Amino acid sequence: MTVRDGMDALIIGGGRMGSALGSLMAQQGRRVELWVRSEARAQEINETHRNTAYLPEVTLSPKLRATTALAESIPRAPLLIMALPSTAFREVARAVGDVVEGDQIIVHTTKGFEVDTFKRMSQILREETCALKVGVLSGPTIAAEILAGHPAGALVASGFDEVITKFQALVEGSFFRVYGGRDVTGTEIAGAFKNVVAVATGAVDGMGFGGTTKWLLVTRGLNEMGQLGVAMGADVLTFGGLVGVGDLAATCASGNSVNYQLGLRLSRGEKLADIVETLPSAAEAIPTTDAIMRNASRLGLELPIVSVVYGLLHGELSLEACLARLMSIPVGSELAAFGPN
Amino acid sequence: MTVRDGMDALIIGGGRMGSALGSLMAQQGRRVELWVRSEARAQEINETHRNTAYLPEVTLSPKLRATTALAESIPRAPLLIMALPSTAFREVARAVGDVVEGDQIIVHTTKGFEVDTFKRMSQILREETCALKVGVLSGPTIAAEILAGHPAGALVASGFDEVITKFQALVEGSFFRVYGGRDVTGTEIAGAFKNVVAVATGAVDGMGFGGTTKWLLVTRGLNEMGQLGVAMGADVLTFGGLVGVGDLAATCASGNSVNYQLGLRLSRGEKLADIVETLPSAAEAIPTTDAIMRNASRLGLELPIVSVVYGLLHGELSLEACLARLMSIPVGSELAAFGPN
Repeated sequence: MTVRDGMDALIIGGGRMGSALGSLMAQQGRRVELWVRSEARAQEINETHRNTAYLPEVTLSPKLRATTALAESIPRAPLLIMALPSTAFREVARAVGDVVEGDQIIVHTTKGFEVDTFKRMSQILREETCALKVGVLSGPTIAAEILAGHPAGALVASGFDEVITKFQALVEGSFFRVYGGRDVTGTEIAGAFKNVVAVATGAVDGMGFGGTTKWLLVTRGLNEMGQLGVAMGADVLTFGGLVGVGDLAATCASGNSVNYQLGLRLSRGEKLADIVETLPSAAEAIPTTDAIMRNASRLGLELPIVSVVYGLLHGELSLEACLARLMSIPVGSELAAFGPN
Repeated sequence: MTVRDGMDALIIGGGRMGSALGSLMAQQGRRVELWVRSEARAQEINETHRNTAYLPEVTLSPKLRATTALAESIPRAPLLIMALPSTAFREVARAVGDVVEGDQIIVHTTKGFEVDTFKRMSQILREETCALKVGVLSGPTIAAEILAGHPAGALVASGFDEVITKFQALVEGSFFRVYGGRDVTGTEIAGAFKNVVAVATGAVDGMGFGGTTKWLLVTRGLNEMGQLGVAMGADVLTFGGLVGVGDLAATCASGNSVNYQLGLRLSRGEKLADIVETLPSAAEAIPTTDAIMRNASRLGLELPIVSVVYGLLHGELSLEACLARLMSIPVGSELAAFGPN
């Protein structure tokens, strides 16, 4: 077996989360490298300790080393962290799969499904690599706040204790508290689903309603998240934790998320195509909503909030029609979808 | 059996929630009366349709009639809604108990425990009245927003379907969506517990942390709420609904709650006694924290957030000591308290 003593972890992807994790771990004395695609970005990180495209407000740890040599770096790392957008995930996973060996751990931080297949990222990892010990990191974390040393929390979920404890060791000593859990499926669903609710929340805020309406919507959105999760084999309690409630509430409260902004601007009458062109990054909610809608009925689910967000995104429902539809649903029992209560 | 055809519901307590519910129901054409203690307040409501002490920004429905005659009004109402502070609850429940008969329904909206006994309000209702069909209404509702017709949601929990359906009928036709549930215990615990987390959230915001820290705290607070609930016989899923997540997140996000303000001002170095004197209403978190702390160890629980809030309120822990204590707890498994995950 290869001796992997070159570093403690290789982070694959130099966006906000990848750069923040790399910098935090380097700060804690861990030997980490950050793979980025572009030579210019690698050079910027190595020479100026900045990543102006993604984290302009932050100075990264000078101990964090960036690289563009994926195949050369992978064999030296016992643990890989894939921090990529869902659209790039399979392609990079395939490149990782060409090199990775069965003893290596892969944890990803991606929030979204593969649209065409409705697959979760951990499923793609299993399809494209021989790695068995995979996991997912998720939670309500803002990259700049983690780097500023604010108390932060997230969950790493994996079927393997070793994945959890090895990841926890990478941030030990910092104020970034990484809890462990078993529910990979639920963690991945929660991270993707929250973006759909963020769109709805932006729209509701744009309509001039207050906290009463917003948190009704968020809570019912959480209920739909749980329904989808349970139908896909998740543990319902996962959605009450950091990756569910925590991330969902943080996203909907802050108003900074791209998906929230999308909903807000739709509520002001802007056209989807115009909004998408001017958003700072891709709105994951658009493909995620499509993917959930295509699979909900197969799973026997009615998800009213996802359904109106879909109608709103595709120009099939006005704001008023969305509201009227949600208000016309009989209330019944709050937890009816989760069995007799 | 007495024929109760004088009205659809009697609301007992003319604070924010009682007045808002009364006005909303009257607006929907229900025959409701509002009991208030003071003649002057009854006169103000009946003559000017305002309740300046509690809802200064709102005009109430002119169809809402206020009364000060409790014993005379009770026999005419099939359903009583007790909307009172926890400190006044037993005394008024006893007065209700002198008159109420076994066929009448009582729903309360009080968020808090009886401090000395750690009893929930529904337990007090059973002790002080012959009413069997009791229930509790709770959720993330702001009185003025309900009255403005904003979509709003809450849960009425009762062991009796009749309580749920009769209450739902009182608001039917409005945008106030009242879901049904069975878990009276969990609903009551959630409403009381959230005030403790609101203090902690105010303190965290006062320390200058951002959303990452705030929602870590809120989510771990929810975890402690669930632990207390399960130990007291509640259904853990209740805490993922409107009375748990919904009310907790709404309270912590808005920053308007008295308990949040208390935490914020403690974090700025003000003394508890000075803060309490100038708060607009009683901070339920103070007695609630004491009551939970007195009972946690009996229930076999360690509740770190409640514990540091207690220390902060009683001047036993500085902010820095609170933070250091929370950060020194080993992270472990997120849902460890809820069995193997």
